[in-house]
Formats: sequence, structure tokens, C-alpha cells
Amino acid sequence: MAWPKVLICGDIIWAHDETKEMLGPLADIVLMDSPSREDFFKRLQTDYAGIVGIYRHNSSADRIGIFDAELVNKLPSTVKWIAHNGAGYDQIDVHVCKARGIQVSNTPGAVDDATATTALYLVISAARQFSIAERNVRGGKWKTGLAPARDPSTLTLAIFGMGGIGFRLAELARAFPMRILYHSRNPRPDTPDWAEYFPRERLNEMLAQTDVLSVHAPLKKETEGLIGEKEFRALKKGAIVVNTARGKVIDEAALIRAIKDGHLGGAGLDVFPDEPNVNPELFELPSVTLLPHMGTETRDSQRKMEVRALQNLKDFFTSGSGNDLVPELKQT
Amino acid sequence: MAWPKVLICGDIIWAHDETKEMLGPLADIVLMDSPSREDFFKRLQTDYAGIVGIYRHNSSADRIGIFDAELVNKLPSTVKWIAHNGAGYDQIDVHVCKARGIQVSNTPGAVDDATATTALYLVISAARQFSIAERNVRGGKWKTGLAPARDPSTLTLAIFGMGGIGFRLAELARAFPMRILYHSRNPRPDTPDWAEYFPRERLNEMLAQTDVLSVHAPLKKETEGLIGEKEFRALKKGAIVVNTARGKVIDEAALIRAIKDGHLGGAGLDVFPDEPNVNPELFELPSVTLLPHMGTETRDSQRKMEVRALQNLKDFFTSGSGNDLVPELKQT
Repeated sequence: MAWPKVLICGDIIWAHDETKEMLGPLADIVLMDSPSREDFFKRLQTDYAGIVGIYRHNSSADRIGIFDAELVNKLPSTVKWIAHNGAGYDQIDVHVCKARGIQVSNTPGAVDDATATTALYLVISAARQFSIAERNVRGGKWKTGLAPARDPSTLTLAIFGMGGIGFRLAELARAFPMRILYHSRNPRPDTPDWAEYFPRERLNEMLAQTDVLSVHAPLKKETEGLIGEKEFRALKKGAIVVNTARGKVIDEAALIRAIKDGHLGGAGLDVFPDEPNVNPELFELPSVTLLPHMGTETRDSQRKMEVRALQNLKDFFTSGSGNDLVPELKQT
Repeated sequence: MAWPKVLICGDIIWAHDETKEMLGPLADIVLMDSPSREDFFKRLQTDYAGIVGIYRHNSSADRIGIFDAELVNKLPSTVKWIAHNGAGYDQIDVHVCKARGIQVSNTPGAVDDATATTALYLVISAARQFSIAERNVRGGKWKTGLAPARDPSTLTLAIFGMGGIGFRLAELARAFPMRILYHSRNPRPDTPDWAEYFPRERLNEMLAQTDVLSVHAPLKKETEGLIGEKEFRALKKGAIVVNTARGKVIDEAALIRAIKDGHLGGAGLDVFPDEPNVNPELFELPSVTLLPHMGTETRDSQRKMEVRALQNLKDFFTSGSGNDLVPELKQT
């Protein structure tokens, strides 16, 4: 049997040594250095032939594009595992992977701290008008024109999607304390009593009590535009919307309309439908805080994610499976 | 005995009704409407004659200046209580008040939530580089040039001054959890074990372990420039300084030097030595988050402060004393 190959597809910045230590004894480590998608496809027959595992980071999309049906279908039949670095894996067509017998893992948990902290920051910033306040001070306008703000401890926070990140945000917000409501497909069993669960059929009831809605749903076909006109209008007047998940999970145009006509009080956005492009209308709204998808941009969480993705590959090579198989591949 | 007068000196925005309800039955309510200090002094003999209590807000300084020795010495001998709206009372010469038998109260506690939230925001912003990140996204530069940031949960936070605001920040930061160190004149008896106390003689030891230093010392003659060159250099390399207290408590020029030469990693500043003027050198430093003294700028805390200041006056009129006498006037 030939020595298996692992293809490193995209950035490893913090865990260089771990890459060698964890995978070196198990496989040949090959760096994906294709400048284009065309070159990538060609070299799948040569340098990249015989790869069994792939480490993947979204940064590889700049050169070879996302792992859509076309790309996944061209991967050699030797490929058995794609260890994606990131919580969201919307850049991988997991259904085609499944059909081809390729397992896909992500790195849940590793990003909870960093992303929940980003969401909390956006909640505070939007509730306290700190983004426009900073633009004011830098523009020599000091406090001129700032509307009266709210204390976070008086707010009701609704968490849409109670995975690891939503749960972590709930814990941080509870310290103020904010009142915590949440919606997810099922109640999360380990959630403390202070977090009030609202199932699908009581969603409007939740939104009507919400001062700040924080979105933590993954992007899939079924969740595209999941939170739109109807949901924004169901929110309390003056409510704030925070999104650190994926831009397309909300209907951004509907959000902008609801802020412009005064129904919503503002927003805190770390993600956008067409990154790195941002709808310039957002720049004109004073009550909006904007970040360039910084949710997981810390060396601590980057390192944690890199090591966790490597661990999934290592586990696959040593035991035939990894801890973080994505849900779509668990259902058989 | 003549009906006593209360002079409302500066803004009451949220508690208009409470002003009448709480003080109306006890005193005549007179509005200080002098356009200048000169006019104020003149009318102390006429409209304002016979005032016993004064409600004071810093906004009155725009017209009549601060309550310095000159102003306090010109107040009629009928004045017995100045109820200041605010936690910091550095605009009142409390020593001259004491010498003249005038009691001074402030509004501690009412601002704890709002100010500690501001400090937490500045900690996150500076640690995660969110201020420069937002300027990036608004300038079309997305993530270009952002240095790798730290997760707040990996940081050691040192709180300089463990009053109500510092204590509240400790509770919020504990949720991450950050490691919490603190310095104040004496250990605070109700502080949980997880907050490590450092007395004056161990201050350098504390600073050497600190990733983020948050300043919560009131401005007095003894605290002006209290944290300067020596303290900044004693901090860990790359540390962040957050100030929501008063600009003059730190030596801002020394702070700027330490950021420029790379010893410090950044700062989050809500206060400045010469507000509303801000040293333009601060605008050039990418790792600095700036706010226009927003610490207590929420309608919730503004209302709480107004009611608390009025309560001190009411208590004085009904019982001869108020809860929130400032420390300088408690020592007899």
C-alpha cells in the first residue's frame, strides 16, 4: 500500500509545528500551491494524485474557488476526508461529498469564544451607539446628535440558533444580566432555566419581546433569507439586529429598509451577502456597526481551529473517523 | 421660617415629574437660568437668595463654570447641600464646601452598569482591533493590515480602583472568564476570591502580569497623572490601557509615547484631559478606540442619576442628611 497523502489546501498560520508533529508520522504532507482552479484540476492527476485527506481553509477559494459540486466531483476516488478549518462549511457541497463517500468535518467549539465575543461587542455597540460616537469624536463632533441609548442590562436578547456560539453569547449576556430568549429547532438540553425557549410556532411571540436579535444559524439552502421582512416587522419597534453567522441568512435589503423607515433601531453586522463587498447604503445609516468578518479573527481561535482540523485528519488516519463530522454526513 | 428654596443647576432630562413630586412638597423649585457666571453671582443676591439645596449637573459649567473655590465662596450661607448628578465630582471644590459647612453628595452606583459596560466594550475593541477593523470596512479595505488579535478569554485584566464601576467590570469580565487582578487602597471585603488583590507595594508585580489595565480611580489632586511613564513601562509588552474614569488620571502623553514605540499594544479611551478636545495624535494610532465620554450616556443611567441626586436632596430636607455624602465630607 502506498503511503497516503494529505493535501494542505489553504492557510495554516499558527500550527506549522503541529502539522508536522500530528500528520508527519501518518502521511506525506503536500502543499496545494496551484495558482488557479484550472491548474488545481490538472495537478489532481500528477502532484496531488493519491491524496486521501484534505485540510481545507476558506483562503484557498481565492485561488481555486469553493468546493462546489464541480470541484468535489473532480477529486480522485482516493479522497476520504475533508477536514475543513471553520465552523461554517457553506463553501463545501456536503451532499456531493456524501454521494461520493467523502467525509467532511468542521471545527465547532473552537470559534465559540471569539465569535460570541464579537456578537456581544456588536450588541453593546449598537445598543449604546458607540460606532457613530467614535466617528463623531474622530470627526471633531464629540457628542453632537447622539440619540439617548439603552443600558444592556435593561435589554431582552433573543438568540436565533442555540449552537455553541449562541450558547456562549447567552452566558456572556447573562452576566449583565440581559433577559435571554432563544429559538432553535429543538430546545437545547444543557441550557439553564434562565434561557426561555421558543419553538417555531411561537417565533412571533419571541420576536415581539425582543430588543436585540442575534443570529447564529448556519448558512444552508434552507436558511438563506431565513430572517427577512416578516421577522424584522415582528420585532419590537426600535429593536437591534446582530449578525455574526453568514450574511445570506438574513435578507439584508429588508433589514436596511426596516432601519431606514425607523422600525428597527440599528444593527451590528460582521457578515455580508457578498464579502468583501459591502452594500454602501449601510455606510449611511448612523446606527449601524460594521466589521469585516472578524468573528474568528484571533490568533487564539485560529490556532485552535487549525489544531482541531488537523486532529480530525489524524483521528481519521488512526481510527477511521474524526469527532467533528458535520451533521449532513452523520445522517445515514 | 421662610419656605426653603432648591436651585436646579444644570440638566434634568428624564426625571421632570419626579423633581416636582419629590421636592415640590418640601421647597420652592428655582431654575438656574443665568447665561453667564457674572449673572449667576449677581442673582445669588436676588432670585437665588435663600437657596438651601442645589441640584448640580456638569452641563451648568457651560454657562457658569465649575464649582471652584471662587464660586463656592460666593454661595449664600443658607446653602447646606449640593446634590451633584454624577459619580465623579471633580468639578466641585469639596474642601471649600467642607470649610463652609456645605455637604456634597454624588450618585455612585447609578452609573456602574453603564460605565462598566463602556469599559468592557473598550477592552474587547482594543483586544480584537475592532475600531481599526470598522474603519477598514468603511474605507473599502476589508481585513487588510489587521494584526492578529487576542481572545478576551485568554487575557489577564487588572482593575485599578475597585469601586462600584471596577467591581461591576470584574463581574462582566469574569463571565469570559478573564483572570482578574485589582489594586485599590484597601482590599474590597465583598470581592470574590477569584479577584486577586495587589496593595501599593506590589503594584509593579500586578502590572507585569497585566494584558489589559482598566482605570477606575476618581480624579483628585492626588490622582492627577497617577498612572504615567513608570506604570506604563511596568506593564507587560503589548498590554492595553482602558480609561473610562477621567482623562487626567493618566499621563496621556506618556501613554501615546508607549504606544508609538511599541511597548503598549493599544488603548481604549472614553475620557481625555481637555474634553471635548482630543489630542489629534490619538487619531493616527491604529490600535486605539476612542469614545466621546459616553460612559454614563444612557437614558437608563441618566434617569437613575437624576432620581438619585433628587433623593439626596429630599433626604436632606426630611432627615437632615443624604445617603451619598462624598468621602471627603464624611471624614470629620
